[in-house]
Amino acid sequence: MATVRTPDPNPGWLSDEELEQIRQRLPLVYIEAVPVRVDGMGTVTDVGVLLRATDSGSITRTLVSGRVMYGETLRDALFRHLEKDLGPMAFPQLPASPVPFSVAEYFPFPSPTRFSDDRQHAVSLAYVVPVTGTCDPRQDALELTWLSPAEAATDRVSDEMEGGRGALLRSALASVGVLP
Amino acid sequence: MATVRTPDPNPGWLSDEELEQIRQRLPLVYIEAVPVRVDGMGTVTDVGVLLRATDSGSITRTLVSGRVMYGETLRDALFRHLEKDLGPMAFPQLPASPVPFSVAEYFPFPSPTRFSDDRQHAVSLAYVVPVTGTCDPRQDALELTWLSPAEAATDRVSDEMEGGRGALLRSALASVGVLP
Amino acid sequence: MATVRTPDPNPGWLSDEELEQIRQRLPLVYIEAVPVRVDGMGTVTDVGVLLRATDSGSITRTLVSGRVMYGETLRDALFRHLEKDLGPMAFPQLPASPVPFSVAEYFPFPSPTRFSDDRQHAVSLAYVVPVTGTCDPRQDALELTWLSPAEAATDRVSDEMEGGRGALLRSALASVGVLP
Amino acid sequence: MATVRTPDPNPGWLSDEELEQIRQRLPLVYIEAVPVRVDGMGTVTDVGVLLRATDSGSITRTLVSGRVMYGETLRDALFRHLEKDLGPMAFPQLPASPVPFSVAEYFPFPSPTRFSDDRQHAVSLAYVVPVTGTCDPRQDALELTWLSPAEAATDRVSDEMEGGRGALLRSALASVGVLP
Repeated sequence: MATVRTPDPNPGWLSDEELEQIRQRLPLVYIEAVPVRVDGMGTVTDVGVLLRATDSGSITRTLVSGRVMYGETLRDALFRHLEKDLGPMAFPQLPASPVPFSVAEYFPFPSPTRFSDDRQHAVSLAYVVPVTGTCDPRQDALELTWLSPAEAATDRVSDEMEGGRGALLRSALASVGVLP
Repeated sequence: MATVRTPDPNPGWLSDEELEQIRQRLPLVYIEAVPVRVDGMGTVTDVGVLLRATDSGSITRTLVSGRVMYGETLRDALFRHLEKDLGPMAFPQLPASPVPFSVAEYFPFPSPTRFSDDRQHAVSLAYVVPVTGTCDPRQDALELTWLSPAEAATDRVSDEMEGGRGALLRSALASVGVLP
Repeated sequence: MATVRTPDPNPGWLSDEELEQIRQRLPLVYIEAVPVRVDGMGTVTDVGVLLRATDSGSITRTLVSGRVMYGETLRDALFRHLEKDLGPMAFPQLPASPVPFSVAEYFPFPSPTRFSDDRQHAVSLAYVVPVTGTCDPRQDALELTWLSPAEAATDRVSDEMEGGRGALLRSALASVGVLP
Repeated sequence: MATVRTPDPNPGWLSDEELEQIRQRLPLVYIEAVPVRVDGMGTVTDVGVLLRATDSGSITRTLVSGRVMYGETLRDALFRHLEKDLGPMAFPQLPASPVPFSVAEYFPFPSPTRFSDDRQHAVSLAYVVPVTGTCDPRQDALELTWLSPAEAATDRVSDEMEGGRGALLRSALASVGVLP
C-alpha cells in the first residue's frame, strides 16, 4: 500500500483485492436508479426492471446500480451506470434535484434495514430517472423489462428482487405518485 | 346562486364577481412553477423569471403561477399555466413526482408566512420545471428573463419579486442544489 | 350572498349551504395526517388509523383529515384536526418542514388520480406526524387503531380505507422508510 | 493489510494511517446535521452552528458532521455525532424519514459542487434535527451558537462556514420554510 499516495491516473479503480478488503472496513457509496417512461404530462406509465442471471443459474430482478468512484460526482456516477446497464441510446433525463427519493442501506449481516448485500455495507442513493430513448442492456444484465406501476408493486415482482429491492421499487412508485 | 347545481359545461370558470366573493371565504389552490434550463447532466444552469408591468406602471418580477380549476389535476393546471405564461413552444418537462419543492401560503393580511397577496388567501404548490423549447411569454407578462442561479439568489432580484416570491425562488434553487 | 363582503368575525366558517355550493365550483384545500409512534432513534414503529362508522352502518378506515379554513396556516389546520381527531393529549410533533410527503387529489368523478371523494374536489397535503401522548379520538371517529407498518401496508387494510387512502397510507410508510 | 480479513471486534475503527490511505481511493459516507429549536407548532425558531478553533488559530463555523462507520446505520451515525458534538443532554428528535434534505459532495480538488474538503472526497447526507434539551458541545467544538434563521442566512455567517457549508445551511433553512 506504500504506493497509494503516488499520483495515480485513475485512483478510483481499485484492484479487486483492494476493493475486497475495503469492503469489510467501510461503507461504500452507491447510486441506484429506477428507469421509467413518462407520458406527455410527466406521469409515470412504465417502470424498468433488470433481469439478471445469477452465478447459480437462477434469474433475479434488480435495479440499475453501482459504486460511486473516487472523484466522481453523484450525477456522473448515475449517468455512467445508466449507460452501462441501459446502453448508450437510453437518453436518461437526470434529475435536477440531487436529493434521492430514498436511501437504501445494505448490510452483509442482519440489520434493522430492509436491505441486504452479501458483499458489503453500502449506502445507496436512489433516484427515479425518466428515459426517452431505446434501452439496450449490456454486460451481465440479460434483459430490461417494462412493467406497469401496478405490476411492479406486486408481491411476486417484489419477491424476485435482489437484496430487498422490492421495497425500494415500491418506494420509487410512491415517490412519483403511482403506488397502488 | 340557485343555478349552481345545474350542470355547467365549465363550472370552474366562475364569474369575476363570484370569484371575488369566494376569495374572501376560502383559501384557493394555486400552482407555481420556476422554469429552468438544465445541462446534459441535469444540473440547472439558468432560471426563468417573468417581468410584469403592474397597473401602477412599475415593473415587478414574478413566477409562473395560477389557480387550479374545479376538476383539474395539478398536472393539468401546471401545464396550462406554463403554456399561458411561456407560450406553446416551451416544451416543459413536468415532474414525475407530484410533491412540490415548497408550499407557499399567501395571505392578504400580516401572517407568520413569508408570502402575501392582496387579493386572497392562496395555498400554492411550487415546482421546478425544466423547459427544453423556446419561451415566448404571452398575456400580461412582458418578458421572460433567464438568470444564473447566483444572480437569481441576490437580494436585488429577491426585492423585486412580488409577494415575497424571492424566498420561494431561493428555495427552488436550494431544492436543485444550486443555491449559493 | 350580498353580505359576503361585510366584515365577518369568522369568515372561514361558511354555512353548510354555502360550502355545499362552493364545493361544486372550486377545489378545496385539505390537510391529512398519518399519526405514528417512533422509537428513540426516530424509526416509525406504529401507524395510527381511524375507524369510522358510516351513515349506512358499515365501518371504514380513514386518516386524520380536514379542511383548511380561510386565514388559517397549514400548521394551524394540521394541529386543529389532529386535536379534533386524536384528542388534546396526543402531543403531536408537527413537522419542521412544510413540504408534504404526498399530495392527494380527490375528485367526485372518475379521474386519473387514485383518490375519490363523493362530496368535492379536494387537494390534500399529507404529513406523517409523530405523536408522543395519549390518543383519545372524539367526534365521529370511533376508534384509533395502531398497526405495525407491515400490517398497515396489507391489501386488507388498504381495501378498508376510504376514497383510496390505502395508497396514501402506503406512500406514508415509504416516505419514512418502513414500507415492506 | 494481511490482517484485514481477520475477525475484528470493531472493524470500523481504522487506524489513522489506513483511513488516510483509503481517503484517497474511495468516497466516504458522512452525515451532517443542522440542530434547530422549534416552537410548539413545529416552526424553526433557532438554528445551531458550531464555532471551531482551527489549527492555525482562526475561528470557523461548521455543522454537526462525521463519518458513518462500517456496520453502522445512518440513524446510529446521526445520533452518535449529535451526542459527540452537542453532548448527552441535547435530546435530538431524529427524523422519521431517512431522506436527507440535501446531499453535499465534498471534494479535495476543484469540482462542480459547492463543497470542498482538503482531506477527502465525502458524500454527506444532511438532516435538520430538532433538539429539545441542553446542548453542551464537547471535543474540539468550542461553542454552539444559536442564530435566528435570518441571521443564519446572511453572507457574513455563510462566509465563515467551512468548506462551503454556508450553502448547505441555507438549504436547510429552505427545507423547513424559513429561508428569507
